[in-house]
Amino acid sequence: MTRWPLPEPMAQALAAARQGADAGEVPVGAVVVKDGEVIAVAHNAPRAMHDPTAHAEMLAIRAAAAKLGDERLAGCDLYVTLEPCPMCAGAIQHARIGRVYYGASDPKGGAVEHGPRLFDRLESLHRPETYAGIGEDEAASLLREFFAARRG
Amino acid sequence: MTRWPLPEPMAQALAAARQGADAGEVPVGAVVVKDGEVIAVAHNAPRAMHDPTAHAEMLAIRAAAAKLGDERLAGCDLYVTLEPCPMCAGAIQHARIGRVYYGASDPKGGAVEHGPRLFDRLESLHRPETYAGIGEDEAASLLREFFAARRG
Repeated sequence: MTRWPLPEPMAQALAAARQGADAGEVPVGAVVVKDGEVIAVAHNAPRAMHDPTAHAEMLAIRAAAAKLGDERLAGCDLYVTLEPCPMCAGAIQHARIGRVYYGASDPKGGAVEHGPRLFDRLESLHRPETYAGIGEDEAASLLREFFAARRG
Repeated sequence: MTRWPLPEPMAQALAAARQGADAGEVPVGAVVVKDGEVIAVAHNAPRAMHDPTAHAEMLAIRAAAAKLGDERLAGCDLYVTLEPCPMCAGAIQHARIGRVYYGASDPKGGAVEHGPRLFDRLESLHRPETYAGIGEDEAASLLREFFAARRG
């Protein structure tokens, strides 16, 4: 099968997801890019941080905003290995992220192409461009292996 | 007009909202209660913190989880002066908050009785009990005055 090469930020998000799995967290990774440069990388960490909001996207967005000294991430793109949930999709809108690239779809918990489809809602003040399925196979494999190991 | 007395946690959430306004933040306050005791209080602070996720509910939930040393807030209730947005409603679900009491409704940005109505969705894994309109008049006045002053 011929594939497009994985964009470098998604490769970094997948590497972060693997680090998350090694740390016992659900393997999801996220990266924020501005002007072609990665300015924040994070993986899920609610268990270690005792923080129910510590999804990869949230941590990457917060780190990027702190780095830029701004409550908004205008001109920034987000790469994340899994379709964002309602919390993270809402944060993406508050942050004014321009483009969202994600890997695996999440029919149960996703809020972009599933469930409330937050970016498509009429009342949405900000609608990022979204691109799905980038690095999908590896992103989904990481999650499957993680949950299979925990069930076993 | 006869009124029920305002529950003490909502009075504290309103006081936090006023502090937010004094600090130049959109006046929304939130309180987490466990076993009748207030364990976290916060107001909106995205401007000061350079953090697009720093809504009152998020900060109160994170502070409560840190205090309890747990990624979930089972047995905790949240009082917030404004109907939660999708980000905060999602965080409330991740945190497994039992009851949500809120003041003013938010037809444009709310996600509980408006917009995606996240707690009513079939795919929702956690549905807190919700009670609206508690301290509504004062909560709404604070917001109206804040935005009127900024427009002036």
